[in-house]
Amino acid sequence: MSRRQLLNAPEDVVPEALEGLALTHPDLVTYEPGAALVLRRAFTPGKVGLVSGGGSGHEPLHAGFVGVGMLDVAVAGAVFASPNALQVHAGTTAADQGAGVLQVVKNYTGDVLNFRIAAEIAADEGLEVASVLVDDDLATAGSKVGRRGTAAVLAVEKVCGAAAEAGADLATLAALGRRVVGSSRSMALALAAGTHPGDAGPAFTLPDDLVELGVGIHGERGTGRVPFAPADELVDRLVAPLVEDLALDGSVPVVAIVNGLGGTGPLQLSVVARRVHHHLRACGVGVARSLVGSYVTSLDMEGVSVTLVRADDELLRLWDAPVRTPALTW
Amino acid sequence: MSRRQLLNAPEDVVPEALEGLALTHPDLVTYEPGAALVLRRAFTPGKVGLVSGGGSGHEPLHAGFVGVGMLDVAVAGAVFASPNALQVHAGTTAADQGAGVLQVVKNYTGDVLNFRIAAEIAADEGLEVASVLVDDDLATAGSKVGRRGTAAVLAVEKVCGAAAEAGADLATLAALGRRVVGSSRSMALALAAGTHPGDAGPAFTLPDDLVELGVGIHGERGTGRVPFAPADELVDRLVAPLVEDLALDGSVPVVAIVNGLGGTGPLQLSVVARRVHHHLRACGVGVARSLVGSYVTSLDMEGVSVTLVRADDELLRLWDAPVRTPALTW
Repeated sequence: MSRRQLLNAPEDVVPEALEGLALTHPDLVTYEPGAALVLRRAFTPGKVGLVSGGGSGHEPLHAGFVGVGMLDVAVAGAVFASPNALQVHAGTTAADQGAGVLQVVKNYTGDVLNFRIAAEIAADEGLEVASVLVDDDLATAGSKVGRRGTAAVLAVEKVCGAAAEAGADLATLAALGRRVVGSSRSMALALAAGTHPGDAGPAFTLPDDLVELGVGIHGERGTGRVPFAPADELVDRLVAPLVEDLALDGSVPVVAIVNGLGGTGPLQLSVVARRVHHHLRACGVGVARSLVGSYVTSLDMEGVSVTLVRADDELLRLWDAPVRTPALTW
Repeated sequence: MSRRQLLNAPEDVVPEALEGLALTHPDLVTYEPGAALVLRRAFTPGKVGLVSGGGSGHEPLHAGFVGVGMLDVAVAGAVFASPNALQVHAGTTAADQGAGVLQVVKNYTGDVLNFRIAAEIAADEGLEVASVLVDDDLATAGSKVGRRGTAAVLAVEKVCGAAAEAGADLATLAALGRRVVGSSRSMALALAAGTHPGDAGPAFTLPDDLVELGVGIHGERGTGRVPFAPADELVDRLVAPLVEDLALDGSVPVVAIVNGLGGTGPLQLSVVARRVHHHLRACGVGVARSLVGSYVTSLDMEGVSVTLVRADDELLRLWDAPVRTPALTW
């Protein structure tokens, strides 16, 4: 039996989904199909604009995070493909409310390139633009292009979005975003790959007795395979290297994000969250806040990522600030 | 390749997940493992208590809806099995804050029986208890036990929860809940069945060219099979009978709930939501509010349900009231 999906023509899935999102949340966002932008319904003159984006297939990222206290504009590429520089330029200038624009960019070659070109064009046109590069995926540390950007992008968007809402200027926001990135690491595993819209089967297959460790969010293979095991053992394999790399010694608490990769539901995610809490408690590390859900997905990949963020009072205050977007509200 | 899950011992999945939920949301809920209850962290003396529950496997229902403006207590059974009458009795009495308790019960034989017994015992003990039976699933209209209770339970819990928060008395809440039930119908379809924790494969299999129409949320087969088709055609098969059964003629708007059944992610759900909006617009039916996400699931079943609720000013005011629970917040 092949994997099937609720789609019309596969090439229409992104514009149709963005239109559906805007129809669902007319109070929060609008959709501009020309450049595949989702924009905040009401802008705030004098606020720094926040723009992010990238390939689709990671929903609710990024369009689901457009709204009050988070992004002003999200730019959508095709599934797993960067939006082009013209789209990103359109999104960057659309985010401008008179105080400059912060780009939040996940570390992937296409995204980095297209956001940079867009920033240069916008700067030539007189817009003040700064960028934060998110590179949290510990599995790819030491690779040629550096760590990939994965679920920590959510923390950057939330924290910088709250600070922008509170009136922070562009330089402050860029420094803050880089501080969140430097404080964040993620690790992911997959039990099954996702299926690209229109494809008959998943991007890779796994034997029943193995789990793919260190997967990214684009259907690429992980950095290794480990034996399938009870959830607690698998979760420990994610959390232990994060604790080590972030040098968590109990002196600072963390924000813990347990992120489903698309095909793993809340029952399993809560089982994972339980072990993340137990593991950190055993290390003497406090969990100041946690967020559990499917926020940065890889189509319908079955699996989970864990992101830990070293917390401090400023970061927690911004984390707690009100947010109202299609996918994240408190 | 069999379906695999992030679990420890399958028989521990429910208590571990509930513990994980409480660890994730210590500001909102507590977990009482004896009777498998999730309780609101802070009760409100003098408020009518709201209790619901049922078999697990439908997460985030019901424990994810415990909090401010919704449920006071959720009672969890094993996966797809009703909690027993003693558990429900414990949950019902725990929900008491001095003004009686409203039980919200989905129409399944076990739930109906156990909630009724629990209500009778609690009434004998002097507690004022009323019940609302939710039976929204149009696919089972005319069956011997009547329509099943599915995603409309979310609307009942949201609307009655808001009214309880605002001080409504028990009789008012019971009448309001019944009005919401009478105004709600749902239809679901599945592309693939879910997999029970510990099982190697899904509850049923489907040929590639067919879709199961009229499925419930317990892995049971649907009421018929129809050809697999583009999403828009499949969505029309769900929406058209709802429009007819609710006699929607454009004179009243609806609340539309597009609910993923567990294994279907936000990209596809937004494609479905788009068509629901288009279909209703073509019928002249306004969508006053919509909610799109996976709220009443059937493990990792791939598919979607659509619930329409005939709206009026009171219902929309209560729908819009603030809510703060693990799974639903605005």
